[in-house]
Amino acid sequence: MAKSTKNAGPQARLPKGFQDTSAADVRAMDRMLAQIRACYERYGFEPLETPALEFTDALGKFLPDEDRPNAGVFSFQDEDEQWMSLRYDLTAPLARYVAENFNELPKPFRRYAVGPVWRNEKPGPGRFRQFMQFDADTVGTDNIAADAEICMLAADTLEALGIKRGDYVIKVNDRKVLDGVLESIALGGEANARQRLAVLRAIDKLDRLGEAAVRQLLGPGRRDPSGDFTAGAGLDPEQADIVMRMVMPEPNRPTGAAALRLSKPNATLEAGFAELEEIGRLVRASGFAEDRIRIDPSVVRGLEYYTGPVFEAELSFEVKGEDGHNVRFGSVGGGGRYDGLVERFLGNPVPATGFSIGVSRLMTALAAIGGGAAAASGPVVVLVMDKAEIARYQGMAQALRQAGVRAEMYLGSAGMKAQMKYADKRGAPCVVIQGSNERAKGEVEIKDLVAGAKAAANIKDAKEWREGRPAQFSVPEAELVAAVKGVLARYREDGHG
Amino acid sequence: MAKSTKNAGPQARLPKGFQDTSAADVRAMDRMLAQIRACYERYGFEPLETPALEFTDALGKFLPDEDRPNAGVFSFQDEDEQWMSLRYDLTAPLARYVAENFNELPKPFRRYAVGPVWRNEKPGPGRFRQFMQFDADTVGTDNIAADAEICMLAADTLEALGIKRGDYVIKVNDRKVLDGVLESIALGGEANARQRLAVLRAIDKLDRLGEAAVRQLLGPGRRDPSGDFTAGAGLDPEQADIVMRMVMPEPNRPTGAAALRLSKPNATLEAGFAELEEIGRLVRASGFAEDRIRIDPSVVRGLEYYTGPVFEAELSFEVKGEDGHNVRFGSVGGGGRYDGLVERFLGNPVPATGFSIGVSRLMTALAAIGGGAAAASGPVVVLVMDKAEIARYQGMAQALRQAGVRAEMYLGSAGMKAQMKYADKRGAPCVVIQGSNERAKGEVEIKDLVAGAKAAANIKDAKEWREGRPAQFSVPEAELVAAVKGVLARYREDGHG
Repeated sequence: MAKSTKNAGPQARLPKGFQDTSAADVRAMDRMLAQIRACYERYGFEPLETPALEFTDALGKFLPDEDRPNAGVFSFQDEDEQWMSLRYDLTAPLARYVAENFNELPKPFRRYAVGPVWRNEKPGPGRFRQFMQFDADTVGTDNIAADAEICMLAADTLEALGIKRGDYVIKVNDRKVLDGVLESIALGGEANARQRLAVLRAIDKLDRLGEAAVRQLLGPGRRDPSGDFTAGAGLDPEQADIVMRMVMPEPNRPTGAAALRLSKPNATLEAGFAELEEIGRLVRASGFAEDRIRIDPSVVRGLEYYTGPVFEAELSFEVKGEDGHNVRFGSVGGGGRYDGLVERFLGNPVPATGFSIGVSRLMTALAAIGGGAAAASGPVVVLVMDKAEIARYQGMAQALRQAGVRAEMYLGSAGMKAQMKYADKRGAPCVVIQGSNERAKGEVEIKDLVAGAKAAANIKDAKEWREGRPAQFSVPEAELVAAVKGVLARYREDGHG
Repeated sequence: MAKSTKNAGPQARLPKGFQDTSAADVRAMDRMLAQIRACYERYGFEPLETPALEFTDALGKFLPDEDRPNAGVFSFQDEDEQWMSLRYDLTAPLARYVAENFNELPKPFRRYAVGPVWRNEKPGPGRFRQFMQFDADTVGTDNIAADAEICMLAADTLEALGIKRGDYVIKVNDRKVLDGVLESIALGGEANARQRLAVLRAIDKLDRLGEAAVRQLLGPGRRDPSGDFTAGAGLDPEQADIVMRMVMPEPNRPTGAAALRLSKPNATLEAGFAELEEIGRLVRASGFAEDRIRIDPSVVRGLEYYTGPVFEAELSFEVKGEDGHNVRFGSVGGGGRYDGLVERFLGNPVPATGFSIGVSRLMTALAAIGGGAAAASGPVVVLVMDKAEIARYQGMAQALRQAGVRAEMYLGSAGMKAQMKYADKRGAPCVVIQGSNERAKGEVEIKDLVAGAKAAANIKDAKEWREGRPAQFSVPEAELVAAVKGVLARYREDGHG
């Protein structure tokens, strides 16, 4: 920050958990979102945008890992004293939208949405209070083909973004399988809803905390290294064991049939396995093999509103973790079937299924595999050599723009050296110079900054470079646009532009 | 809304002043924003995104037409009891960003930004509590060429969007001209700041309320038709007359020189006219004539933070007004030079100038001149004739997608007739049908809905249509993709696709 000479006013800072996005990241993000959008459009989904604010009661209390209603949400009262909240996901606003416009919508209603969501939580590393989600949902059908399609969409989207087959997998489970297991150990029914939720949350932490911690969370509870105590689900060791055997990673996990044997079979469990089999059959018929979409009973997803199939998009390649060791990248999105969200408003069941991409995490993943943005070319900078001639310089910039070239006149008040530094900082491919000598001759000088940098970096080839691609040359002013386009073409061919 | 059979939970409704954006509008908006972005990029501006929330003290109190600090803003305390607010424009966050990152930025710093802003105001017709702005600003230079460039950018942007030359004009004034006039009638200095602000606000209402009302607002105050009283600026009739003669529309308005004569000339007034002359000279040198960028002393802009040139982008074509009469469309954006915003944080002056587009109004304008979206083609819909065969149907949809065709399988549970209705509602160009007969023959039937609709609408040509472009035909299943592409190509040629 620049030194303050006076006792200035407020401090220039962002609240914790919020971040600015600079040009390169905005461009990389836009490109990624456009690729996702194209894929979702190809699957027949239509865009919908809803506002950032909703009535608090319309959003409901579906936040993951939150026991208190509306905790974790930014809320305030408007002038009519009604409580409003910033949306914490894109699903709750969708449910409100569908309920409000039910009769007018085509059914099933297929929409995608992208935008920021907000969580009023303690920020931490990689944990932001504003972040982007990109969702696709199909509302108004209990057809399991809709769930299968969501899995296919997720797989195709990751490949469209340049993630290689084998580097990702869409894992599918069914909430009914877990519900069936819980039913078989006497945790079914409305009376045990809270205990079931505690089990879900415990299992969802398996990746992060490991088996021992999750067993504690399923049972009496767990004190973490910082001394904080988390209450447990209260399962006895035998119950906990049955749950753990369902969700442990391969090879310890039994397959579908084995799972049926290990607990007393019941209709819920059987329905869950039937749905998973149907999803498997449908995606295989559309050409998606096990390496892309895989049935995996360890997937639970924390949200209590899921009622059927649940999905998790996982990246399996390794990146350097916080402790310096390589770790699997992990989840970049997930979703599932939720048959109750719209029903809250309408009283009638409106089954739905969907998938949400964690956009920032996916962006990080793409950067890790080198799929980030190629730096956009900076503008051509027309230097100001003579302040009395700025109308002429600005005219040159304008002529370049009209020819489709990104260009600007230097608008500061510094000298030649600082202007060259500015052009470097902007990533300018070349600068345009007209001092009094050139003006007298009716010429402009064009300085190719890329060639110049290469020549400077490689003294041996400098002569060759200068001869083949002169880093600095003069042309008649009337040929300015053509000459600049010639320089830009050099780097477009080379893949620099 | 669907009828509720139970006593349902919350009501599905949006708070007043907020709106959903459906597919066609999202697409039209995205296209418009992409065109604006391309123009801003060509001028050398770089994208920047800042979060929706800022510390309330960092946003400051620069809302137009608001006397109370922070009135009109959505504000709340976070868990650390710090006050945060939703941004009400994109300029205040820019000032915070520049102050926070001053040393790292290229100077001048040229950025564009697009995104929603929020105002906690009473909503009304066309007055929303969340709306989009698209801004370009150049920070860190007092070079008047930066202001000239902003005017050029605004003009080029409107033309890039398809607004014809002559249908728009960028009006330019200078706050110093008005300040000079006020100085000449003894309203200069810190002590009269509030009175000057009252004058600004009165003048800004000239378009809406007319001359008589503005004279009242400049003088003793005004009671509006509803009986509400607005306090006046307290000018005496002679002072008010001098102000009015500055701002009245042509031909009643004196030109620059005449204005200098009508009040006691002073340095501020002269500086203002000098800046306007320089802007005029610069834009003419870059080829922008009076019909595109015009000096116009009636432009004031309400924001008190402007310190130099101010701009207003006006559309001069007429549209049907609320009362059924034709009215000029009016302003779609504006801006100006503000040299104090960053200084608030740093204590040092950091001159800046910028321009903000009112995106929704501009969108409305484009729709009015027929520049709205061409309807995007809906997806090809594969009908479900036999529920046992959905794996096969879904495979067809997937084959189409892999060939780049927007496609989906019908995911509802309704019969043939309802499925055709669904396809119509989705704007499907064609549907794919395979009943048991076709399946037995290894064929699929393709029904061209556009041709079918044309044939139905025009009985006379129906035969010809059917012969030239059969609305329904069968092909071997292996030729599905090629046949569908053939149908789509019909309408791409016709400009329907």
